[in-house]
Amino acid sequence: MPGSHCTKGVQKNIVYNINSSTSAASSSPTTTFTELQSLMAHTDPPSKHENSQENRKEKDPVPPRPTNLQRARGRFLKGISYFSGDMKVFGKWMEKQFFLLQLLDWVLRGAAQVMFVNNPLSGLIIFAGLILQNYWWALNGFVGTLFATISALILQQNRGAIAAGLYGYNGILVGLLMAVFSNKGDWYWWLLLPNIFMSMMCPIVSSALASINSRWDLPVFTLPFNILVCLHMVATGHYNNHFPQVLFKPRSEMANITWAEINVAKLFTSVPVGIGQVYGCDKPWTGGIFIISLFISSPVTCAHAVLGSTVGMVSGLALAAPFGDIYFGLWGYNCVLACIAIGGMFYALTWQVHLLAITCAFFCAYLSSAIANIMATFGLPACTWPFCLSALTFLLLTTGTNKIFKLPLAKVTYPEKNLSFFWKLKKQEKMERAKKADKEREEQQKAIKEKIMLNEKEQLRLEHEIMEKGRAEREASEDENDETRVEDHWVEQKGTGDEEIGHNDLTEVTFGD
Amino acid sequence: MPGSHCTKGVQKNIVYNINSSTSAASSSPTTTFTELQSLMAHTDPPSKHENSQENRKEKDPVPPRPTNLQRARGRFLKGISYFSGDMKVFGKWMEKQFFLLQLLDWVLRGAAQVMFVNNPLSGLIIFAGLILQNYWWALNGFVGTLFATISALILQQNRGAIAAGLYGYNGILVGLLMAVFSNKGDWYWWLLLPNIFMSMMCPIVSSALASINSRWDLPVFTLPFNILVCLHMVATGHYNNHFPQVLFKPRSEMANITWAEINVAKLFTSVPVGIGQVYGCDKPWTGGIFIISLFISSPVTCAHAVLGSTVGMVSGLALAAPFGDIYFGLWGYNCVLACIAIGGMFYALTWQVHLLAITCAFFCAYLSSAIANIMATFGLPACTWPFCLSALTFLLLTTGTNKIFKLPLAKVTYPEKNLSFFWKLKKQEKMERAKKADKEREEQQKAIKEKIMLNEKEQLRLEHEIMEKGRAEREASEDENDETRVEDHWVEQKGTGDEEIGHNDLTEVTFGD
Amino acid sequence: MPGSHCTKGVQKNIVYNINSSTSAASSSPTTTFTELQSLMAHTDPPSKHENSQENRKEKDPVPPRPTNLQRARGRFLKGISYFSGDMKVFGKWMEKQFFLLQLLDWVLRGAAQVMFVNNPLSGLIIFAGLILQNYWWALNGFVGTLFATISALILQQNRGAIAAGLYGYNGILVGLLMAVFSNKGDWYWWLLLPNIFMSMMCPIVSSALASINSRWDLPVFTLPFNILVCLHMVATGHYNNHFPQVLFKPRSEMANITWAEINVAKLFTSVPVGIGQVYGCDKPWTGGIFIISLFISSPVTCAHAVLGSTVGMVSGLALAAPFGDIYFGLWGYNCVLACIAIGGMFYALTWQVHLLAITCAFFCAYLSSAIANIMATFGLPACTWPFCLSALTFLLLTTGTNKIFKLPLAKVTYPEKNLSFFWKLKKQEKMERAKKADKEREEQQKAIKEKIMLNEKEQLRLEHEIMEKGRAEREASEDENDETRVEDHWVEQKGTGDEEIGHNDLTEVTFGD
Repeated sequence: MPGSHCTKGVQKNIVYNINSSTSAASSSPTTTFTELQSLMAHTDPPSKHENSQENRKEKDPVPPRPTNLQRARGRFLKGISYFSGDMKVFGKWMEKQFFLLQLLDWVLRGAAQVMFVNNPLSGLIIFAGLILQNYWWALNGFVGTLFATISALILQQNRGAIAAGLYGYNGILVGLLMAVFSNKGDWYWWLLLPNIFMSMMCPIVSSALASINSRWDLPVFTLPFNILVCLHMVATGHYNNHFPQVLFKPRSEMANITWAEINVAKLFTSVPVGIGQVYGCDKPWTGGIFIISLFISSPVTCAHAVLGSTVGMVSGLALAAPFGDIYFGLWGYNCVLACIAIGGMFYALTWQVHLLAITCAFFCAYLSSAIANIMATFGLPACTWPFCLSALTFLLLTTGTNKIFKLPLAKVTYPEKNLSFFWKLKKQEKMERAKKADKEREEQQKAIKEKIMLNEKEQLRLEHEIMEKGRAEREASEDENDETRVEDHWVEQKGTGDEEIGHNDLTEVTFGD
Repeated sequence: MPGSHCTKGVQKNIVYNINSSTSAASSSPTTTFTELQSLMAHTDPPSKHENSQENRKEKDPVPPRPTNLQRARGRFLKGISYFSGDMKVFGKWMEKQFFLLQLLDWVLRGAAQVMFVNNPLSGLIIFAGLILQNYWWALNGFVGTLFATISALILQQNRGAIAAGLYGYNGILVGLLMAVFSNKGDWYWWLLLPNIFMSMMCPIVSSALASINSRWDLPVFTLPFNILVCLHMVATGHYNNHFPQVLFKPRSEMANITWAEINVAKLFTSVPVGIGQVYGCDKPWTGGIFIISLFISSPVTCAHAVLGSTVGMVSGLALAAPFGDIYFGLWGYNCVLACIAIGGMFYALTWQVHLLAITCAFFCAYLSSAIANIMATFGLPACTWPFCLSALTFLLLTTGTNKIFKLPLAKVTYPEKNLSFFWKLKKQEKMERAKKADKEREEQQKAIKEKIMLNEKEQLRLEHEIMEKGRAEREASEDENDETRVEDHWVEQKGTGDEEIGHNDLTEVTFGD
Repeated sequence: MPGSHCTKGVQKNIVYNINSSTSAASSSPTTTFTELQSLMAHTDPPSKHENSQENRKEKDPVPPRPTNLQRARGRFLKGISYFSGDMKVFGKWMEKQFFLLQLLDWVLRGAAQVMFVNNPLSGLIIFAGLILQNYWWALNGFVGTLFATISALILQQNRGAIAAGLYGYNGILVGLLMAVFSNKGDWYWWLLLPNIFMSMMCPIVSSALASINSRWDLPVFTLPFNILVCLHMVATGHYNNHFPQVLFKPRSEMANITWAEINVAKLFTSVPVGIGQVYGCDKPWTGGIFIISLFISSPVTCAHAVLGSTVGMVSGLALAAPFGDIYFGLWGYNCVLACIAIGGMFYALTWQVHLLAITCAFFCAYLSSAIANIMATFGLPACTWPFCLSALTFLLLTTGTNKIFKLPLAKVTYPEKNLSFFWKLKKQEKMERAKKADKEREEQQKAIKEKIMLNEKEQLRLEHEIMEKGRAEREASEDENDETRVEDHWVEQKGTGDEEIGHNDLTEVTFGD
């Protein structure tokens, strides 16, 4: 869910960014970005940034002829570009299709946006994973995404944001988790009623939160989902006749942890399970499928997901969590999301940011345990509160180094593209600086030239003076005129002058004689 | 409590708005509003907006003579205007009265402001309802309002806001509810001490919250009351020797709900009881009196109050609440406030906003249940937290439609007036647009005319040139005096000219021949 | 911790302020301040404000010769200035020292910044007090401060803020309190691991919170400490194998309070104990040492600390707290901090502010009890949440009086200096006003003078006219010249003219004759 729900102005940026992704001249929510814009405006003509790479190629006067291998590789990469990343080409093609087909595209993108992936193919694979897990859950997830998207359409939210699935991902989580935490078991059809109501509330809560978060150029993450699911669960509770919830209890005795009993195989499967738990799924295969869906869109995201899940598992062991919780992936899913968010999604991926992402994952694991204990007091699960809070904290961080570069929200797409955006920016900055240096050098040269010219003039002036003097002397001997004498006197006086700017004027006067 | 406590600049607006309500030229906290202002500045002279309707009447050259019935109706409406709405005339008259009388006016308005009503008569009726409920509670409510208002005066808060009762409504709730939730029973005089302290803290907390909320142009609602009453209750708690509180316990077993046992009469009385519970009163008659007090000031507010209470009752049934809670009005009072706030008070009332208000009431009912369960963990009641949170969420909503128009906070008065403000705005916008279109059309016509004229001129010029040439040839053959000829030529030329600026140029050209 | 962690721009101000303290021309986060700047810019040359007092002395043409007593007093005051206040001279000297020595300075300042004191000597005394209390706690506190400062260096936070100890004070509290609340007893070396991790998280959380709080020009206080310690404690909890915490339980029965059993001596010692509890220390001597360390830096701070602790004790008695809690200083430490913060640190100390500080201390005491009860539900202590929330509330307060002046965050140092800043500001404002008044008076005088001059001119003109007339008559009789006649006619015409501005020109023309 990159570049999530913002106020109107910001949303327009998102759309522009998501749909056409060609404008760098769009107005920006942050001053930082406007500065960047001004940097970019110099080198490239506006609305051509995306194509600059191709342009550069075309501009190459005599490109080296590619070998067969290179050609094959090029074709392969182009083929990949059609279904990896955010599938922009597909998205554009979709714009002209039948409305229901579009809606399906939005729903699939929404399903994938939970993992910050704007890709309908990933969404499709994720739905496959959900079906593998549980039919009823998958149905509820679908209903949730669908009604959240419809509600956003009714409320006339930004079309581009809807098309990117930014109004769907909270819906799928609301639908799924309400089904997961229901104590009535599967196929309790009445559950669809609060499911639809809560899904339809998603865009309202998203929009409200975005009004606040956009002040700091922050996304809303899964906060609407957290708020609405907790709302539903605590409003009904475990002891409810219509919609009873699974009971969560606070820990009240020491967990029995014997290190000898540890199951290393289960510990390893806890990594994909942790990724699966983002959608509330506990089957390792489902988690594996989710990993594939991430890899399709963005390998960087995929790597950070696995890394995050691992960090979560390690933290669980460090903080003496019951083994069952670790195996069940409860320590992983928040770290997965936090690690993805910081590691390349909202920051441009550098080594420093990579380390920051790992730190954030550790912090998130700590926070998971804390929030789980607090929420259990109210009979609630931790949901993804820990991820939201830790990621927001790390996004609010300000440092003195330019190695940790937070992307303006309207420019967030996926790690690889974010990185290329960052590089382009840096290059342009460098070029700007080089240009500036060039200009300065030029000016210096100009100044030197002028000096030389001045010197030449001076030379000329001196010669002229000598000539004048000679003439004056001659004249003095020939004629006894007062006026020439004064002039003569004046020229002599001037001859003893110093080498300053005032000279030129004097020279001109002299020339004027 | 419209246009609640804001930072200094904003407060000044409020005063202006509340006291004189005649200025549209006051500086505004939101950019939206400044835009609106500029729209309004064109059609009406500044500070005459309120009287524009009357003005229009007066401007009618020959108004149709009113029949007796119409006259009677006019008088009746004028009579009503004296004690309905915000009783502006009365408020102005009060400004010149004795200080204690003014203070009483402010206290009464404060009592009514809980329901967003700025009307001392409503306040008086509300106090009557409170006395009907419980003498001790009414006394505590009065003490709370009084000391909150005095504290605001000491802290030199904005006089206009104080005069509108905006510093009193939290005080009355603090006073009332501290008495309601005290476990020491009635007439425990020591309770007045924390009552006075907490009431006097109201303006401080209000001012602090307003500093935050004004960034989003949001009112503080009853947040200060919620904070301070919860503060007092949880600070002392049930097990306290001095100020023990009523015990609230979290639900720990399934409620026994048998649909056969439902009491339809009690269900119906739960609607007025829900309105009464805004002030912590459980008697249906008290609630009925409150309904009357609302109707006096604003029928739209009254209708939404009843609607909200009904929505709350229905939600309670849907979420399997114990019947006792529903009868007791616990599901109603938050929905009442939320429905009033959204339905015409802070949004201009359109059909879309009306539906939004109902949605908000349902959301608020859900939230009531949730917050009641959470607060019970700490031994606390829900207070009006659900209303505050749901209304703030719905006020932060941004949509693409102009049918959902959030009024700038400084312009909020009461639903009927808000609506007329909205209509005026729309009309002026339309006029502006029409003017603009007119201008554009005019300019187009002008451009066409100019083109035509230019063509004609060109024609003329060409003819003239031909003539000139012919004459020049003739002249050359005859040859006489140059000067007279030129003059002659000039006079002739002038005779054929038209009355425009462009001419001169032509003339000059001609001279050049 | 004055002028705490802010966004980059703000931090720069802090540095400037802390390191050189000479610039009043630095750009400011609040509009208020920019206004002040403009006021200041008129009277003093920029970056000379600090020295203005000395300057004034120097400018005195013949200063009265000081007596021996005055000289001794001067020397004594100068001696004091070296180790009181914020020890600026020492800080500047430190800048050129060995890095480890600098780091030690920062750590000591960080230790003192908990009490808003930027003074390494105070920090040293505080560490002495901690050692007196418990070696292990002191060690943990030192480790915490050290690693928090190091982490801030790694994250390239603002050097000036680091040098002022603004990144250390959360670290010392985190280190100390994690040791205090650990259930494993002293010298459990594993505790250093989470201690170091949490200390290193301090700058991150500080920076994130500062990004939010700086929008309202508010400091972050000890919020990072509160967040991180609560995070650690609730994440592990009482029932944890690795890092178990002390158990906090909510009150579940009436406290046995017999007023006869009260121990007045213990009640009195609760005042220094309350100050000691800021660092989690319960020994009266430690508290006494802390009082001394405060007195060294700023007597005003010291007085408000004692006052706050007393208010806390009284509130505890009023709210029927168990005597044990009061003796233990639990009612005091938050009030101590709140009273210091409001009483002269962030507001300029006037009588009104002094009363506000006492009110804030009472409010804080109430809040302490409330938050302690709420936190106990989660098995947590109150930490310094009550102080943070009450102080922030009182700092967000806006009033109409100019007696309650909130200092811009970048200008906060210590109460005495803040006060002198405030006075200087007021004086300059007065001077500005006087200047303005002078200017107005001058202009009025000028206007009067001009009027007089105009009158004189008019007089002159009239005389001249009479002369002219006389001459014209003479000329008319003597000579028959056309030109003079015209002039005559013209002069006559002029004679009947009116008294307008145009006159002068005419007069001048006439003069030109």
